[in-house]
Amino acid sequence: MRVLGVDPGLTRCGLGVVEGRAGRATMVAVGVVRTPSAAATGERLVYLEQELETWLDRFAPDVVAIERVFADVNVASVMTTAHASAIAMLAATKRGLPVHLHTPTEVKAAVTGSGRADKAQVATMVTRILALDTAPKPADAADALALAICHLWRGQAENRLTALAAGSRR
Amino acid sequence: MRVLGVDPGLTRCGLGVVEGRAGRATMVAVGVVRTPSAAATGERLVYLEQELETWLDRFAPDVVAIERVFADVNVASVMTTAHASAIAMLAATKRGLPVHLHTPTEVKAAVTGSGRADKAQVATMVTRILALDTAPKPADAADALALAICHLWRGQAENRLTALAAGSRR
Repeated sequence: MRVLGVDPGLTRCGLGVVEGRAGRATMVAVGVVRTPSAAATGERLVYLEQELETWLDRFAPDVVAIERVFADVNVASVMTTAHASAIAMLAATKRGLPVHLHTPTEVKAAVTGSGRADKAQVATMVTRILALDTAPKPADAADALALAICHLWRGQAENRLTALAAGSRR
Repeated sequence: MRVLGVDPGLTRCGLGVVEGRAGRATMVAVGVVRTPSAAATGERLVYLEQELETWLDRFAPDVVAIERVFADVNVASVMTTAHASAIAMLAATKRGLPVHLHTPTEVKAAVTGSGRADKAQVATMVTRILALDTAPKPADAADALALAICHLWRGQAENRLTALAAGSRR
């Protein structure tokens, strides 16, 4: 399964593509889309959509995992984050790709074992899990990869549970 | 000038088209787009985009006026409102239409004279200004028309100021 992780934002939108199967995850691509803060929000959204389309074309993920945005954190930036998140959901859904949202706590817990890990710890574990030479930068890029890994591993856990449940019914 | 006013939301998105010139405003169309709360957010955004495209095709506004969403009010619904707002900005910008955001206070002040007017007062004044037989319902529809009127009148005030400034430079 190939997952595109999206850490939504307009100043910086982290994108990470990870491919994996049980116990393995490898990086396919990582990057950051930046849109100029001086531009109108509509223009920034159009540019972000174009970049997302390019990534969806080039890397053909099976699923898109997006960070779930909460209204009660980072009040100043939450609106633009929500705008960026909407564009990612729209672009994926228009291609018929499943969209899954994961909270920051779920993502941190998936890659570090602790839902309260800091950004450095997340970056360290992403580097280790994907066997990279150096930590992906900026943090948004590492977070996007962490989101993709989170989705891959949660999906696998759910698949195992489904398989176990199916087995116990035999 | 023809203005499409958008009161963004996913449960109900108010749309109102108003045409006008100095001191006059007439209603062209009003409606509400509803998307099913049981559907995935991505599906709701795709549906909203399709409906907005239909309105932009049919009524060909010169400008789109959208309510500015704040992170500190209605925390529970602010995220879906922000998502809907992003789709409206995207759709308008992709057609090269100017997008303007107006705060609820600006809208209320434009149609009632008071930034603290309640919804009933806004609906009453929208009905009066547009010479309608009955108040547009639901409130989201009336709010979308109020947004369009607000934009029309603010634009005219700005044009007058620009003309005065140009005159004083002669």
